[in-house]
Amino acid sequence: VGKGKSRKPHWAVRASEMSKRTFNPIRTIVDSMKVEPNPQKPLISLSLGDPTVFGNLPTDSEVTAAMKEALDSGKYNGYAPSVGYLSCREVVANYYNCPEAPLEAQDIILTSGCSQAIELALAVLASPGQNILVPCPGFSLYKTLAHSLGIEVKFYNLLPEKSWEIDLKQMESLVDDKTACVIVNNPSNPCGSVFSKSHLQKILGVASRQCVPILADEIYAEMVFEDCRYESLAKLSTSVPILSCGGLAKRWLVPGWRMGWILIHDRRDIFGKEIRDGLLRLSQRILGPCTVVQGALARILHRTSPEFYHNTLNFLKSNADLCYAALSAVCGLQPVRPSGAMYLMVGIQMEFFPEFENDVEFTERLIAEQSVFCLPATCFEYPNFFRVVITVPEEMMVEACQRIQEFCERHYRGSEGSQEMECDK
Amino acid sequence: VGKGKSRKPHWAVRASEMSKRTFNPIRTIVDSMKVEPNPQKPLISLSLGDPTVFGNLPTDSEVTAAMKEALDSGKYNGYAPSVGYLSCREVVANYYNCPEAPLEAQDIILTSGCSQAIELALAVLASPGQNILVPCPGFSLYKTLAHSLGIEVKFYNLLPEKSWEIDLKQMESLVDDKTACVIVNNPSNPCGSVFSKSHLQKILGVASRQCVPILADEIYAEMVFEDCRYESLAKLSTSVPILSCGGLAKRWLVPGWRMGWILIHDRRDIFGKEIRDGLLRLSQRILGPCTVVQGALARILHRTSPEFYHNTLNFLKSNADLCYAALSAVCGLQPVRPSGAMYLMVGIQMEFFPEFENDVEFTERLIAEQSVFCLPATCFEYPNFFRVVITVPEEMMVEACQRIQEFCERHYRGSEGSQEMECDK
Ligand SMILES: Cc1ncc(COP(=O)(O)O)c(C=O)c1O
Ligand SMILES: Cc1ncc(COP(=O)(O)O)c(C=O)c1O
Repeated sequence: VGKGKSRKPHWAVRASEMSKRTFNPIRTIVDSMKVEPNPQKPLISLSLGDPTVFGNLPTDSEVTAAMKEALDSGKYNGYAPSVGYLSCREVVANYYNCPEAPLEAQDIILTSGCSQAIELALAVLASPGQNILVPCPGFSLYKTLAHSLGIEVKFYNLLPEKSWEIDLKQMESLVDDKTACVIVNNPSNPCGSVFSKSHLQKILGVASRQCVPILADEIYAEMVFEDCRYESLAKLSTSVPILSCGGLAKRWLVPGWRMGWILIHDRRDIFGKEIRDGLLRLSQRILGPCTVVQGALARILHRTSPEFYHNTLNFLKSNADLCYAALSAVCGLQPVRPSGAMYLMVGIQMEFFPEFENDVEFTERLIAEQSVFCLPATCFEYPNFFRVVITVPEEMMVEACQRIQEFCERHYRGSEGSQEMECDK
Repeated sequence: VGKGKSRKPHWAVRASEMSKRTFNPIRTIVDSMKVEPNPQKPLISLSLGDPTVFGNLPTDSEVTAAMKEALDSGKYNGYAPSVGYLSCREVVANYYNCPEAPLEAQDIILTSGCSQAIELALAVLASPGQNILVPCPGFSLYKTLAHSLGIEVKFYNLLPEKSWEIDLKQMESLVDDKTACVIVNNPSNPCGSVFSKSHLQKILGVASRQCVPILADEIYAEMVFEDCRYESLAKLSTSVPILSCGGLAKRWLVPGWRMGWILIHDRRDIFGKEIRDGLLRLSQRILGPCTVVQGALARILHRTSPEFYHNTLNFLKSNADLCYAALSAVCGLQPVRPSGAMYLMVGIQMEFFPEFENDVEFTERLIAEQSVFCLPATCFEYPNFFRVVITVPEEMMVEACQRIQEFCERHYRGSEGSQEMECDK
């Protein structure tokens, strides 16, 4: 066959290098936690960043009504442009537009979830061989996508003792000639932290001094508790080019709908036509989000009731307070009080739990004994912490905290030198 | 700054290599066709493979009702697994399952449109440095995605004189040690051709002899006219591993909804766990399709009325016949009769149109003079043809054909040696 070719065909289909590099640490860690919940206790899962699983946080009725209206119109069945309908991009531009950081339709790219927004932003900014700076602890997708694209990841530290502010000196020291961008996630998954205006200004200072653009993951924008104020990075800068990634997933409680966006902030024309064209070209690979959701977007953004946002945040704050108070009282645990998003990080003083090797084993045994499932923060490159999702119904939150307390009491061992087996809490 | 580093930062943000390699030829060719339609005649666009643009082909009422039901249930707002809900994968498996090519839920991956299905399939099968075989003329996305991933493309020829069957010898001669897969698109965009059972068997013969897996783009599955029968590749093979890509876009007339799928056919376990795991890992990058559409899928597949499919195909066939008959009568044009999908390819005997350099100029002038917009087949790597989309309302189809005829009559020049300026049609 094939004109005397010496090839002797045989079947040898191998998965590509890229597919092998693509790797979700959460799945790998969770899948390796081969442990059954205690059959005596119903499982309480505090592991998934999905606010809809318990049914206690439905989206606003306006949001559903907007979808039905879009469906009934029959106008949103066809292909949209790959970056989204112009009218919908305009809606998003107007929604986020402000005098300090003006936006027009052409500055918006609609994507299939914030995940695709991050993917496109990374794919346009960084080439194989370059590196990006990523928060630690941080959302695992950044590393997954970067490695998938052949881009190196350098971690900068968030400081739990400073409410998870960035260690700016250390971050700045990581920048080198191959640094393509810094990812800043505010409010934060997994920390639930919200950066102050002055901290954001200092972050911008680093970016500005080092001439490194920012990929701002602002999917939890405005999801901050009442004593706190959310500021977007773009509003505070006149020079640093920023790709801000967001979407409907969290604030509107519809993560499955896969509606995300990139806001291109580039007042000094540093990204310029090159990055805009690059984003456009990349968007043509698989096209953007579902057109029905696009058709519903104007009504979703304009008509969702203020009470809806308010109630969601009240609920989250109340659960956060409850969980923080309960776990603060537990010997060996050091929760960090969150100010937004839907998470709370809890430090484990591993020296008081000598039975357990690390956070993975700690959370594994917590499932086996108490049927409470929290993600070990090793999933976020941050050992000896675990993450609690605070979107569960209040009574479950209470029950979960009680079980965690029981678990810790059972396994807590005072420091070896001390007589006391009790901590001073 | 930066501990004595000699770097003197300045802003120099460049688009990545990948974004520069990513390139949609249709956009580039169409955007370079800087030409205004004739203001005296309303524009008739026969260029977009979007059956919804003229409003004459609405989706079935069951399809819309299914979406509303999914919305009202409130059960489809959260995250689905990245490969889709298990129940929905089961629905798709059952829908395409047959004794000759059995499918289970685990063989299905739900994707954001058939485009993402193709992207994932390519990304798992081929690594940079490898090549894939792609039809010529063919859908431009294959090359766009392959080059974006750093994969080389080799074109195999479709033969217009044989109703666009594959030149199998030439195809087989292209296979080498670096060939990762063959893409087979049936029914075809842009040709509207449908392969016979025996031709499909011969294609499988090549794949089997050469041990090359097939990526079957079957987005137009079942969209064949009444005198013709559609066969899936998988049904005809017991050994060749096949990733079949499909979706709701065309047959259900909702391309904007971005619901696609991969059917994994691998009865000899040649893909094995490696390719399945690779697809799973790749799906976790941006997750799959909108959950509302997933929630509606069972009802869409089971309850769409048979008349709906029937009426759509009748309409397409009638328009195809009309267009084929009209353009066959035009001197200098050689339409090829389609048997399915929504397209018709027309050969231009360029020697009779000496005014025009090529198909791009021909179609450009057709817009300028007659306000009829057809894609030059250079978009599909196939010069001297143009593609007609046959989803437009009948009266537009008639009008467009008349204008094309007028245009050709005006520019037709008999062969130089001949006295006759008229062709023998
Ligand atoms: C910080 C962060 N960014 C991005 C995403 C992804 O959002 P989407 O579901 O819209 O892709 C998540 C989801 O959990 C997240 O926590
Ligand atoms: C042959 C072919 N494959 C795939 C696609 C993409 O389908 P989807 O819109 O579901 O991504 C198209 C769209 O025109 C097509 O013609």
